[in-house]
Amino acid sequence: MSEALFRPDHRAADQLRPVRLTPGFVATAEGSVLIESGNTRVLCNATVEQGVPGWLRNSGRGWVTAEYGMLPRATLTRTPRESERGKIGGRTHEIQRLIGRSLRSVVDMKALGERTIILDCDVLQADGGTRTAAITGAAVALAMALDKLVAAGTLKTSPLRQMVAATSVGIVDGNLLLDLCYEEDSRATVDMNVVMLADGGLVETQATAEKDSYSRKQLSEMLDYAEKGIRELLAAQRVLLDKAS
Amino acid sequence: MSEALFRPDHRAADQLRPVRLTPGFVATAEGSVLIESGNTRVLCNATVEQGVPGWLRNSGRGWVTAEYGMLPRATLTRTPRESERGKIGGRTHEIQRLIGRSLRSVVDMKALGERTIILDCDVLQADGGTRTAAITGAAVALAMALDKLVAAGTLKTSPLRQMVAATSVGIVDGNLLLDLCYEEDSRATVDMNVVMLADGGLVETQATAEKDSYSRKQLSEMLDYAEKGIRELLAAQRVLLDKAS
Amino acid sequence: MSEALFRPDHRAADQLRPVRLTPGFVATAEGSVLIESGNTRVLCNATVEQGVPGWLRNSGRGWVTAEYGMLPRATLTRTPRESERGKIGGRTHEIQRLIGRSLRSVVDMKALGERTIILDCDVLQADGGTRTAAITGAAVALAMALDKLVAAGTLKTSPLRQMVAATSVGIVDGNLLLDLCYEEDSRATVDMNVVMLADGGLVETQATAEKDSYSRKQLSEMLDYAEKGIRELLAAQRVLLDKAS
Amino acid sequence: MSEALFRPDHRAADQLRPVRLTPGFVATAEGSVLIESGNTRVLCNATVEQGVPGWLRNSGRGWVTAEYGMLPRATLTRTPRESERGKIGGRTHEIQRLIGRSLRSVVDMKALGERTIILDCDVLQADGGTRTAAITGAAVALAMALDKLVAAGTLKTSPLRQMVAATSVGIVDGNLLLDLCYEEDSRATVDMNVVMLADGGLVETQATAEKDSYSRKQLSEMLDYAEKGIRELLAAQRVLLDKAS
Amino acid sequence: MSEALFRPDHRAADQLRPVRLTPGFVATAEGSVLIESGNTRVLCNATVEQGVPGWLRNSGRGWVTAEYGMLPRATLTRTPRESERGKIGGRTHEIQRLIGRSLRSVVDMKALGERTIILDCDVLQADGGTRTAAITGAAVALAMALDKLVAAGTLKTSPLRQMVAATSVGIVDGNLLLDLCYEEDSRATVDMNVVMLADGGLVETQATAEKDSYSRKQLSEMLDYAEKGIRELLAAQRVLLDKAS
Amino acid sequence: MSEALFRPDHRAADQLRPVRLTPGFVATAEGSVLIESGNTRVLCNATVEQGVPGWLRNSGRGWVTAEYGMLPRATLTRTPRESERGKIGGRTHEIQRLIGRSLRSVVDMKALGERTIILDCDVLQADGGTRTAAITGAAVALAMALDKLVAAGTLKTSPLRQMVAATSVGIVDGNLLLDLCYEEDSRATVDMNVVMLADGGLVETQATAEKDSYSRKQLSEMLDYAEKGIRELLAAQRVLLDKAS
Repeated sequence: MSEALFRPDHRAADQLRPVRLTPGFVATAEGSVLIESGNTRVLCNATVEQGVPGWLRNSGRGWVTAEYGMLPRATLTRTPRESERGKIGGRTHEIQRLIGRSLRSVVDMKALGERTIILDCDVLQADGGTRTAAITGAAVALAMALDKLVAAGTLKTSPLRQMVAATSVGIVDGNLLLDLCYEEDSRATVDMNVVMLADGGLVETQATAEKDSYSRKQLSEMLDYAEKGIRELLAAQRVLLDKAS
Repeated sequence: MSEALFRPDHRAADQLRPVRLTPGFVATAEGSVLIESGNTRVLCNATVEQGVPGWLRNSGRGWVTAEYGMLPRATLTRTPRESERGKIGGRTHEIQRLIGRSLRSVVDMKALGERTIILDCDVLQADGGTRTAAITGAAVALAMALDKLVAAGTLKTSPLRQMVAATSVGIVDGNLLLDLCYEEDSRATVDMNVVMLADGGLVETQATAEKDSYSRKQLSEMLDYAEKGIRELLAAQRVLLDKAS
Repeated sequence: MSEALFRPDHRAADQLRPVRLTPGFVATAEGSVLIESGNTRVLCNATVEQGVPGWLRNSGRGWVTAEYGMLPRATLTRTPRESERGKIGGRTHEIQRLIGRSLRSVVDMKALGERTIILDCDVLQADGGTRTAAITGAAVALAMALDKLVAAGTLKTSPLRQMVAATSVGIVDGNLLLDLCYEEDSRATVDMNVVMLADGGLVETQATAEKDSYSRKQLSEMLDYAEKGIRELLAAQRVLLDKAS
Repeated sequence: MSEALFRPDHRAADQLRPVRLTPGFVATAEGSVLIESGNTRVLCNATVEQGVPGWLRNSGRGWVTAEYGMLPRATLTRTPRESERGKIGGRTHEIQRLIGRSLRSVVDMKALGERTIILDCDVLQADGGTRTAAITGAAVALAMALDKLVAAGTLKTSPLRQMVAATSVGIVDGNLLLDLCYEEDSRATVDMNVVMLADGGLVETQATAEKDSYSRKQLSEMLDYAEKGIRELLAAQRVLLDKAS
Repeated sequence: MSEALFRPDHRAADQLRPVRLTPGFVATAEGSVLIESGNTRVLCNATVEQGVPGWLRNSGRGWVTAEYGMLPRATLTRTPRESERGKIGGRTHEIQRLIGRSLRSVVDMKALGERTIILDCDVLQADGGTRTAAITGAAVALAMALDKLVAAGTLKTSPLRQMVAATSVGIVDGNLLLDLCYEEDSRATVDMNVVMLADGGLVETQATAEKDSYSRKQLSEMLDYAEKGIRELLAAQRVLLDKAS
Repeated sequence: MSEALFRPDHRAADQLRPVRLTPGFVATAEGSVLIESGNTRVLCNATVEQGVPGWLRNSGRGWVTAEYGMLPRATLTRTPRESERGKIGGRTHEIQRLIGRSLRSVVDMKALGERTIILDCDVLQADGGTRTAAITGAAVALAMALDKLVAAGTLKTSPLRQMVAATSVGIVDGNLLLDLCYEEDSRATVDMNVVMLADGGLVETQATAEKDSYSRKQLSEMLDYAEKGIRELLAAQRVLLDKAS
């Protein structure tokens, strides 16, 4: 890695952007967190609904799903609303499926019972890494909503088995960088998203070559960076949730 | 008006909810304001785009339009996304047409030239009066975006002729009430929205009987309340814009 | 008001266009009226269906709703079909919500029981004032459909509490004009729709400034004109319904 | 054919329903005819637009197309609007393609030049045979719109080569019947639509077995009936158009 | 008919293209046949589902329906997917309704019981005559699926009353031609599709003039050609089904 | 890995299913390959179109994109058509984005020039691994289409830099398995897709935990399996393309 490494916000290559978690950002949801990761800001709200999708009915098992949206001016150039266009785009579909899978991996569906938890992740301002911020934030909103079910006596213990968080890593000008902002992301040749559990187990690793391929060695180094970052995010989540309880 | 009047937040009948305007809520838009009116919170972002819709091309005139959305958990019970349903509902259509008309009334389209200003009004939390809060907030975002065009030397003077603001009035249990919160709104027999200019001219008055009709006298009293409230909102806008300039 | 006032059809400022109500225009509907207001022609058909929307089920209460459409060549320049475009536009949504609310205000939903009345208002030819003509005509179609339920012994008495009618007023070149035709409407600076009950109670007043604002005094004068016009429309409805019974 | 043949309106087996053509039913369209065939009533309006679809651009040739719709209460049981359902159904598609093809067969597209004629056929009341009534009526609206282009000096002579009309034949209880009404149509085992030119040339013959197949001999007899009916319809069209010119 | 008759594949005027039926083309469907008619290749798969559409529930009767699709590169120039365009086009609607009607004509719905058979006809390569190939192929897939229900003991005997097949005839340069390929079809002035039962009964005859009309005599000659062709197709179906049983 | 390892088709844990590539499956496309991987069969067709999407216009660069579809009876239980549902689902979006990215990684867009290559991947029969089969097959169709541009003299040399192929790996009952069939896939706790270049560079690695997380060590072992499988697929592609040239 060259001495000349320069990040727009002067971070070290393996340094996360400052993370801020604001609980209860809206008062209307069962769980609500605003996650800010540098200039990326995602509002994560958890909803608990009775019942489950058709294929799970009478199974005694619950379901967790996610929806992802971006306000038109989350981006520097206005992005038209998907409601106006009349359909959800491919990128949105891909992201909300990733968030949903990641959060399902930490919930004991038997213990949840026939309830559905919907995680709405809405990007208020976008500067790269919105999908990983959404996962990290939604995990907190999910934990809060489940705690509320316990507090209300609906469930005896929280069906949350452990926490989960996510970050991105990329290769820019040959340098590995943790937690890419938009400017870095748009110049990256490789872009990787990692979702990891508190116990270190991996849930999702997606590494995509945008312009150049990558080697097994580079993949392994990207995982090292991601693990370091995710451990810090898990710590931030823990601080917040400990305070809350 | 009976002594026993009770409002959930102990306001007087002709008292607005506390209003807070946070400028620059997102850094990505040309004009951005978070307006909070009690528990109602609407993010208003202004976008300046080159060009105008087809029917105005080569007219030398500009255009101002608005889009309105509600995050799923702005409400106590989750509202499904219009992007998922694949279409904009009737209520959304009605509201964004109202916002658009209201803001067009204060812009000199000739002076704006062939540019389009889009006002995105997204409700983060809803507690009644979202459409009137959106108008009041969007007017500020619009003013900021136009000031930016002047500051950049694109326009010599702002095409904004004057400010505009809006509020609601209603009749609940026979009592006139200014600026209804959701609980009051759902019990109102008459619901009125008023949009007024800084010079006192009326732009929109819409009074709807939900369960009972209203008399000419009641209509006049509702307008008195609305005028009082809108003058206070116009003052709050002025404070903010004077600070900004 | 200047001497030089000129209306395309030589009406006085406070004069309605000739109104004609043709009952039973189609034989297939439970209630059917063709309303002609000058060159504006709207076919209003009432349908009685068993059952109510989900949120009213088992409430013992009925529901009244409206749908509004315009044939492509109702207008001088062909308007593409909303069925071809795949969605209902904002103007249509706004109008059918207005018609629905207006007619719900005169029906005793408890007395109607769990039935839904749908008022289909289809514009065959448009020359301004289609939404107010639709309300006036649909009220008659509604009355007929309810009378038929009484005649059939399904209901003991009609759940219609009183009649309702609507008209428009506008300001053109500084002159107040009642019941605007298209040419006047397109030049109006202020456009107002008023929906009023037979007992004089107001149900909807919507005054919109298109190019210029209006004063409280002007609003009051517009209401005077509207009241005069609506009383005449209510008389025309009465003549027809008395003949029918 | 048995003596006991009974048609709901006491017609002979090879007798058309009374046909009435009302020209200029709306004043807004370039050509407008209300065609009534018994209780079936279809409003046919012709629009002339500059330009042609992409694949004909710069070909010097024109285009003729049709759209078909049914008002919700054209039928005894209300049919939901296709605009509300968000898409055109298969039956509508099939019918408007048939009308379009039929009318294209009588227009000299070179003589028409790069113009598009749209025939809007809207069913106000349906009692069987709406698609054939639409063809017969739309041909008149088309002729009128083309005559208007000649009268205006836009075209030297009308590009209409000859007239075209259509009717239906069916087999009900083993009896051949001309011009089926709804009650007959719903009991028919075979249903045939025939579109024929004034010179006797066939443009469309579509015979469909609904419950039972048919023989070559029956097909030939059905064509005899259809020819007889269409000659009468062509005569009715001629009377109207001669009067008009 | 002139001596100089030339068909791109040197066939006689009344000669079918070589037909090949490959049973079991996919192993996943209850009935599966790839039909090849010259270069036209259509995959026909039959699905048996429990239950029937709403209007047949508790009638004791079954239902048969069809869906038709074309892979984007079935054609020489790529055709955009209807799933991407978000709606089924008019041509597709027309074709799948024709296939459905044709196959319903040979099934005893009482004997089928409350089951639905869906025939999916997907064009892998198109060279004219895809709809008639789909009918001929789908009839075989249907027969196989019904035989499987008998083999499984679900039904005592097959509800298939007899076989059905279809072909096209056209007039090109004044010559009658059987079974048009794409090149011939695009030059045809008249295009006819005929669906016929094994017992010679006609189910559908649709003759469309594309550029020129046709006479009763020509219609009769086209039927002669079609009958000859369909008898050969019925024979090919029989060979396959006899082998299978 | 236990001795008792049992795969439905008796393969070794690190053994691919038999692969068959049939070139020219349809004659209509610029490149066409049917890839069969065990019972999974995907038809991959390449289309070359002039021009590029808007954001690349006048850049001198080309574009490669993919669309993915599944015939309704590719699956044991019929899957409704996305064209009937009126929208592309999330899974389809995710897959076609993956195929598109993978193929773009091997094309020199400058050398391609302002042309778009569309890869249509349609699943005729599905038994797991359809997306990786689509990538492997589409790469061949792409190579063929580019060779055709060279053969036609449109391009001097093929813009294809190297070949690319893909396979899946999973963990089932604690055992690593290469190239999962549907039965294995539905029981897998971890599912990984790998896309690799002929030079060994990685383009995509996506490992998803369905029920259980995975360790870094397991990720590395899965990559070993995938590499082995992809080298065999690349060899099969080479054999075919060498024969073709």
